[in-house]
Amino acid sequence: MNKYPKELNKLIKELSKLPGIGGKSAQRLAFHLIQRDEEEVERLATTMVRARRNIKKCSTCGNLTEDEICSICSDQSRERRTICVVESAKDLIAIENIKQYRGLYHVLGGVISPITGTGPDDINLKSLLNRIHDEDVEEIILATNPNVEGEATAMFISRIVAPFNIKVSRLAHGLSIGSDLEYTDEMTLLKAMQGRKEL
Amino acid sequence: MNKYPKELNKLIKELSKLPGIGGKSAQRLAFHLIQRDEEEVERLATTMVRARRNIKKCSTCGNLTEDEICSICSDQSRERRTICVVESAKDLIAIENIKQYRGLYHVLGGVISPITGTGPDDINLKSLLNRIHDEDVEEIILATNPNVEGEATAMFISRIVAPFNIKVSRLAHGLSIGSDLEYTDEMTLLKAMQGRKEL
Repeated sequence: MNKYPKELNKLIKELSKLPGIGGKSAQRLAFHLIQRDEEEVERLATTMVRARRNIKKCSTCGNLTEDEICSICSDQSRERRTICVVESAKDLIAIENIKQYRGLYHVLGGVISPITGTGPDDINLKSLLNRIHDEDVEEIILATNPNVEGEATAMFISRIVAPFNIKVSRLAHGLSIGSDLEYTDEMTLLKAMQGRKEL
Repeated sequence: MNKYPKELNKLIKELSKLPGIGGKSAQRLAFHLIQRDEEEVERLATTMVRARRNIKKCSTCGNLTEDEICSICSDQSRERRTICVVESAKDLIAIENIKQYRGLYHVLGGVISPITGTGPDDINLKSLLNRIHDEDVEEIILATNPNVEGEATAMFISRIVAPFNIKVSRLAHGLSIGSDLEYTDEMTLLKAMQGRKEL
């Protein structure tokens, strides 16, 4: 047991529950916080609680929103017949940032993974099927991550949407722009080779 | 400008003001927080504000405390004629953890550094002189860090306390236990050589 004041130990303990914050970082953060202006600490605390309270998932696509329906789903200028399926709202933002895609999204909020025990019912899949059923969807783009769970989830979705007879596509695999062949992993190189395009 | 909900962006901005938390970490933390139980987020927020409000500096030594006088200064079983001078409360804890030192402390709350513009008046030095003046002090152990600022601060203190005619010592420099001569920096090796002890 160390000799810090009780409240400081409590704060260190709470901070070390955050992801990526180990014991040492929690200690550093706690020392920083108790030395900052009281007003600033209060602002951080309030922002935290308010964000947690007011941000919810879009009832249509699962994207983060402060309203019932997110800004993308309610944007009538978007192409509504294509749904891009992503694992998280962060992935959605990554795709939005390329400013190319004009369709809608569906945020799974996870991937199917036997390791963590996440099954198809634990992610936002049923609502995707409902959307395909109820709306006039022409294409589903599977943009889950290019790793084991992401691939498995994409495969699973492609199988369950097969009966709907819509186009299902997957993001291309290949070399990263600016990367070095010499340092590219074998799997990526293999995918790049298999997906080669005629010039 | 990204497309996150406004409150989420605010939270990311507040979090990225924390030391060691870059943009990506702030984003990850924010996503984590808005997905955690509301109760847990409230507990973190309250702990933060409460710690900031209730933890102050010991009016005698500058150590962190919830009371007027810290637990070490008010512990009458400690050896009151030795004062170990440290840069921060974290250093104090590090020394307490070796369970060897039974004297008192003085926390400077910084070091003299021309680079950051921190002078002798900006750290908790005057109160150290007052203590030496008012109390029956026999030894001052200078335990500032073994770097340029720490050494300079130690030198400065040793000079200003010289008129009091008390013993002034400095923590020993040398090889870390378990370290490798091959990988030890030259300065440390030099200090270890100069400070060698006869067996």
